[in-house]
Amino acid sequence: MNKFKLRFVPLGGVVGVTKNMYLYELYENDLLKDILIVDCGIGFPNERELGVDLVIPDISYLIDKINKIKAIVLTHGHEDHISGLPYHYEKLGRPLVLASKLTAAFVANKFKEFGQTVRLEKIDYQKELVLGDFQIRFIHLTHSIPDTVHLMIKTPAGNIYHGTDFKFDLTPPYGQPPDFYNIVKAGKDGVLCLVSDCLGAEREGLTLSEAVVSQTFEDEMRKTKGKFIMTTFSSNISRIRQCVEAAVKFNRKILFLGRSMEENTRLAQEIGYLPIPYNLVLKEKEIAKMPPNKICLIVAGSQGQYDSALSKLSQKQNPLIKIKPGDKVVFSSDPIPGNEASVYSLIEELTLEGAEVIYPDITEQLHASGHGNKEDLKFLARFTNPKYFIPIGGDVRHQKRYQMIIQELGWPKENVFCLTEGQTIWFEERKARLGDAIATSNIYVDAYGVGDVGNIVLRDRQTLSAEGIVIAFIVLDQYNHLLTQPKIVSRGFIFEKEDKELINNAIKMIEQTLKPKKEKIINLISLKAQLIKNLEQFFYHQKGRRPLVIAEIIQL
Amino acid sequence: MNKFKLRFVPLGGVVGVTKNMYLYELYENDLLKDILIVDCGIGFPNERELGVDLVIPDISYLIDKINKIKAIVLTHGHEDHISGLPYHYEKLGRPLVLASKLTAAFVANKFKEFGQTVRLEKIDYQKELVLGDFQIRFIHLTHSIPDTVHLMIKTPAGNIYHGTDFKFDLTPPYGQPPDFYNIVKAGKDGVLCLVSDCLGAEREGLTLSEAVVSQTFEDEMRKTKGKFIMTTFSSNISRIRQCVEAAVKFNRKILFLGRSMEENTRLAQEIGYLPIPYNLVLKEKEIAKMPPNKICLIVAGSQGQYDSALSKLSQKQNPLIKIKPGDKVVFSSDPIPGNEASVYSLIEELTLEGAEVIYPDITEQLHASGHGNKEDLKFLARFTNPKYFIPIGGDVRHQKRYQMIIQELGWPKENVFCLTEGQTIWFEERKARLGDAIATSNIYVDAYGVGDVGNIVLRDRQTLSAEGIVIAFIVLDQYNHLLTQPKIVSRGFIFEKEDKELINNAIKMIEQTLKPKKEKIINLISLKAQLIKNLEQFFYHQKGRRPLVIAEIIQL
Repeated sequence: MNKFKLRFVPLGGVVGVTKNMYLYELYENDLLKDILIVDCGIGFPNERELGVDLVIPDISYLIDKINKIKAIVLTHGHEDHISGLPYHYEKLGRPLVLASKLTAAFVANKFKEFGQTVRLEKIDYQKELVLGDFQIRFIHLTHSIPDTVHLMIKTPAGNIYHGTDFKFDLTPPYGQPPDFYNIVKAGKDGVLCLVSDCLGAEREGLTLSEAVVSQTFEDEMRKTKGKFIMTTFSSNISRIRQCVEAAVKFNRKILFLGRSMEENTRLAQEIGYLPIPYNLVLKEKEIAKMPPNKICLIVAGSQGQYDSALSKLSQKQNPLIKIKPGDKVVFSSDPIPGNEASVYSLIEELTLEGAEVIYPDITEQLHASGHGNKEDLKFLARFTNPKYFIPIGGDVRHQKRYQMIIQELGWPKENVFCLTEGQTIWFEERKARLGDAIATSNIYVDAYGVGDVGNIVLRDRQTLSAEGIVIAFIVLDQYNHLLTQPKIVSRGFIFEKEDKELINNAIKMIEQTLKPKKEKIINLISLKAQLIKNLEQFFYHQKGRRPLVIAEIIQL
Repeated sequence: MNKFKLRFVPLGGVVGVTKNMYLYELYENDLLKDILIVDCGIGFPNERELGVDLVIPDISYLIDKINKIKAIVLTHGHEDHISGLPYHYEKLGRPLVLASKLTAAFVANKFKEFGQTVRLEKIDYQKELVLGDFQIRFIHLTHSIPDTVHLMIKTPAGNIYHGTDFKFDLTPPYGQPPDFYNIVKAGKDGVLCLVSDCLGAEREGLTLSEAVVSQTFEDEMRKTKGKFIMTTFSSNISRIRQCVEAAVKFNRKILFLGRSMEENTRLAQEIGYLPIPYNLVLKEKEIAKMPPNKICLIVAGSQGQYDSALSKLSQKQNPLIKIKPGDKVVFSSDPIPGNEASVYSLIEELTLEGAEVIYPDITEQLHASGHGNKEDLKFLARFTNPKYFIPIGGDVRHQKRYQMIIQELGWPKENVFCLTEGQTIWFEERKARLGDAIATSNIYVDAYGVGDVGNIVLRDRQTLSAEGIVIAFIVLDQYNHLLTQPKIVSRGFIFEKEDKELINNAIKMIEQTLKPKKEKIINLISLKAQLIKNLEQFFYHQKGRRPLVIAEIIQL
């Protein structure tokens, strides 16, 4: 009889919330047979990753196995689950991509923007899909974007329930409530491991339904004498639709601002997810002649991005639209951790322009998280009743909190695997164990290309931004004697004209270092390293700072 | 083809919370074929029903149909669901009674106390039970008593999900979590009507798990230098077990006090639901020689009942056990609405005796309700996804609140039937409609028997307690002439010796009323009514009060 093993390989998405990409590898008699890929998203650079636009998963591990890939399943249309795909699709051998309706619309558009094509198929909730030795049931869930799916992945080595980002929204404003039958049915059929969203593990109770926001929009719109300006994640199509419906009720014309907002709402309209009466569509150039209380702007930039449509409004950079007293700006989103400062300074600017700004801190029921709180997570665990758990989509502290929740439910702690990126898990004979870690690195994408930006560049950018730079130019003869006095230039460190003594002392120190020694110095690389080290120490002693130090030695 | 109709007949349990008894009548071609009875509980008298010990359902409607009764299913062991049965069992023709393990133990004991036998069978969760044209699936639920079941009742006229008292407890301290699979499976198979608990419909969020109480018990026990005294509903076996386990941890010996507490814990121990180490069982007479910090008393009377074990403790009526400073009394229950005054005066008395008293108002996580809050109720509605709803087990305000919740979920208001007792619902061709109301009355039980106490007796008792009584004795000859001065006696109204004038005036008024008129007065009954009316008016004018007035006329 053939022996099957399954390996779970997280190429992203564990620790760090974003950049979701997971492999399920099925082995038959120790030979890799089938690979199923779930999601391929981007990550967002953190504040130490300067100049980086986004981060994508590292697929080097996969490159020699692409003939085993049966398909890529995309669980929902958020950037951190789909937007890495166009960067990798060709290298992965153009596998079949499966996605639900809205997700498929978003993905198709991404590929179009890349000037590429994709083999895209819509998922069918009605039947199990057979891919090699995988049998996959797609299960409708609720989240902050429509058409989110969980996966029941049946394999000969055990069944995995892949529970991507979700909450149990019993009153979704649009679309169906969660498909409880198939969730619980998965539990009945037997789940070896639940791979579960864990981002809400710190929060008590159940997550609020999206429905609570509709009433708030109406209440706020009713009270607004000027323009009503709403900002949220541009993928949150149901939130946007709630705002549109309030605008329809108060007969305000609607304009979307910002590239992502315009794109996403256009796609949602095309597939019928965002109906807007024809006579309520507003064009940017019509703004001037409309009374402010007949205008509803839905604007990208809720995270305070410096180049977003909302930031431009706040800085009077939009030639056609101005913020004025009487206008109301509604933030229907929480700042993503790390973005707080940008968001609050944007709020400051908008307030200075005269707008009344409301945001979840000061007004309840303005935003509902898309991620399940503790009780949602407990319900999913009870419904699927697995033997093992892998928390995904959260940071280390969310993973640990999730582990505690599962312990409260009565499972042993060791049955919950808190993984780091690349750390694999083997499933064999109904047991799970840690496997080898796959080496991965962050692939950084900036305006100039993919992967050009390495970790050293990033560290440098970080140092530059914090401490400045000092460059020493040294010209030597073939015997390593100084041919002229070393020259020192600095930027962002000291103002040289006012600190001549420091520079002169540094020059003297370089001269000292290069003083002819008995043995002939032959290794220029060692010399350079020695010079840099000495300069770093010197500046640290003198100024208590650590600028980036560069030494450029020219030997004639 | 035969035509089936189903009728839901609430003989109790709608409006008034307690006295649960429901009939499901299946009709084939308009002929009554099968009756299924769910529950047969007692009600508790309200404060206007003085001297009444309990209220039981009125089964007069059933008496000529007992040959159609297929069985009585008892959903759980609470008094208001099972304790009416021994009063009615013989009259119902001794039908088969089905109950889960703990419920069956409680019921068997009730019948034993009545000196009766019962045809009792344990339910089987594994299979559907066929009873006539009913097919019943028993579904394990969580509540404040173990072994609570919901019923999926399949009939040729549509399926009913009977959702008796429950909450979704994801971390029950003992026993299994709810059987989500069979709940959701019922929804998949198709539910025409959900009959649902609605008592928690006013409360936000999910109901707390029973598990939260364990930690509180331990924390409080650790801090207690004297006796630890816990009181709760004596049916709440898992709460009692949590206290026992804390006592075991702190090596305190355990004594149960109060008849219901002793009985229920004895039964629970017999079926293995309440394990207590042999060496920790305390006898009442051992109390005196035990150090107080080695004692844990679990006492009946959490509702402040005047003759309960706890009330006796508070009033120094227990010869062997005294409340002393250092003792702690823990109320792990909320007052049932209407009992607040009794409970708080009991707390006062215990505090006066020197005990530290803690109760849910002042200490969190001391009690978890057994009934689902809003979100529990929403989940059940989504899981079972019925066409119609009947809220049971609550008062009118809970029913209405439940109706609002179901509307929030998107069902039309008119699909939720808020019924009064006896108001029936017909299910026919996948539609529900109001049927005739069955006449029912409260059957009162007091120390002297069943049904002797009518509504008039109750009204009298109420008046007596509030206003007192006045009795007029009048002796007439055959011509209706007074043979002697009328005599007036009163109790609880005025102190006659001090208010002689009032009495004398009343006597004069009687004489005036009886003064010979032209027409001969022949009707003594009218005369009596006239006298009573006059006296009532007289006393009301004189004293502003309405004592019960009795006129006794003796004609010689």
